[in-house]
Amino acid sequence: MPERQKIQNVVIIGAGNLATHLALALHRKGINVIQVLNRSRQSGERLARRVKAGFNNDFRAADFRADLFILAVSDSAIGEVARSLHLKDQLLVHTSGSVDLAALSGASSNTGVFYPLQTFSKEKRINFSNIPVCVEANTKENEEKLIQVARLISKKTQMLNSDQRKVLHMTAVFAGNFSSFMYTIAEDLLKKHDIPFNLLKPLIQQTAATARHEDVFSRQTGPAVRGDTRIMEEHLEMLAKHGVYMEIYDLISKSIIKHKNRNDEL
Amino acid sequence: MPERQKIQNVVIIGAGNLATHLALALHRKGINVIQVLNRSRQSGERLARRVKAGFNNDFRAADFRADLFILAVSDSAIGEVARSLHLKDQLLVHTSGSVDLAALSGASSNTGVFYPLQTFSKEKRINFSNIPVCVEANTKENEEKLIQVARLISKKTQMLNSDQRKVLHMTAVFAGNFSSFMYTIAEDLLKKHDIPFNLLKPLIQQTAATARHEDVFSRQTGPAVRGDTRIMEEHLEMLAKHGVYMEIYDLISKSIIKHKNRNDEL
Repeated sequence: MPERQKIQNVVIIGAGNLATHLALALHRKGINVIQVLNRSRQSGERLARRVKAGFNNDFRAADFRADLFILAVSDSAIGEVARSLHLKDQLLVHTSGSVDLAALSGASSNTGVFYPLQTFSKEKRINFSNIPVCVEANTKENEEKLIQVARLISKKTQMLNSDQRKVLHMTAVFAGNFSSFMYTIAEDLLKKHDIPFNLLKPLIQQTAATARHEDVFSRQTGPAVRGDTRIMEEHLEMLAKHGVYMEIYDLISKSIIKHKNRNDEL
Repeated sequence: MPERQKIQNVVIIGAGNLATHLALALHRKGINVIQVLNRSRQSGERLARRVKAGFNNDFRAADFRADLFILAVSDSAIGEVARSLHLKDQLLVHTSGSVDLAALSGASSNTGVFYPLQTFSKEKRINFSNIPVCVEANTKENEEKLIQVARLISKKTQMLNSDQRKVLHMTAVFAGNFSSFMYTIAEDLLKKHDIPFNLLKPLIQQTAATARHEDVFSRQTGPAVRGDTRIMEEHLEMLAKHGVYMEIYDLISKSIIKHKNRNDEL
């Protein structure tokens, strides 16, 4: 690919957690963030200062010298904000796991998706290089440009179409959000019985470590996979006062047993 | 506590994963494992050789010179095996999270529980020092003896009564077994769509890291806690072909929303 096609100048639209971490990561890798666009002046100017960019709170004032426009706004705002930029053929991407590439059609003739799979919080400094970036684009050429940018900031770049990206986003709810809520249930129940949550922390870390391998289920332990009905019944009884937790215990246990039986049949 | 009361000589009953890791940890810390008792000769002799202990497959041949007998057998065998040792006042402990201390009454006048909270697999060498050991005993003196042994091999020792230990064991099912099954669901769904599970691994590690803090729920992310019904409905639709996974998605999402509302009220 000839040098002139490389992405050099970027406009970031948004100033939330993802916009901030992404802008900082690009800035560190020598990409010029030439402008931050954001409706709220305070957070937008703050981010602009950190990456030495211009700032505007009017989306119609987008700096057209950029060769990439990155939309890091909420899912529901993507379509409207995209159109309000009044681009023609400038490369425009959104950063959402659950929004179709097609949401950008009409806003530019060159479109793509640049989706970093991670939960971002404002405070913590993020090591972007460990965060997978999933890329999609409307042409092969745009795809290559985006992959090049993704590889600058991340060791893990993956081409995914919109349907695959949505599946990935959904599975992240299970592996991230729901596993986290399992910790919450445990913490909640322990607190009620004056038992320190600290005791579970090594187990949580060890369990997460098993997910570094493939076929996580081969490492599944506990009463359900052992078929220990005595323990399961005892646990359900203990949870009788905690309606939803009991339902969750019952449903997941049954699902583990089903999964085991299915695997045994294979 | 005078020197003569310290535990020096131990008999291990069982030769499974827990028995093995426990015997090795004690052996490394200078405790004499003088005998391994196990019904199956092969695994019992193998463990005995590793810790330079005698071996017998007849429980009635227990070596009475020991000052601690550690039962590391399955929950359902504890009572029967305990009685078959024909002890009188030798300190006898079991290692189960879900069995009452009372299960040992009748088997000796000195009883306790020595419960390491972790999932053990045979292959992996375990760093016991990070594993919390929960202790209970029928007298203050026995309690002190067991705490002393626990502190030899672990940095985290916790006194818990039988009821608390059962609660802890149950919460370990949520925090360990169930979070692990969330990874399995994700892996399963990704495989069906030809998406590499690798992409989720950094998220899983990052999520587990949030559990190092207290109040895990304050770090909860995702569509449920955000109240993003559009995404939740889309995910449920995508899961329509996977009945149980859809039920799990629905139930946990509702529980997260409920938890959030409850916390907002406080």
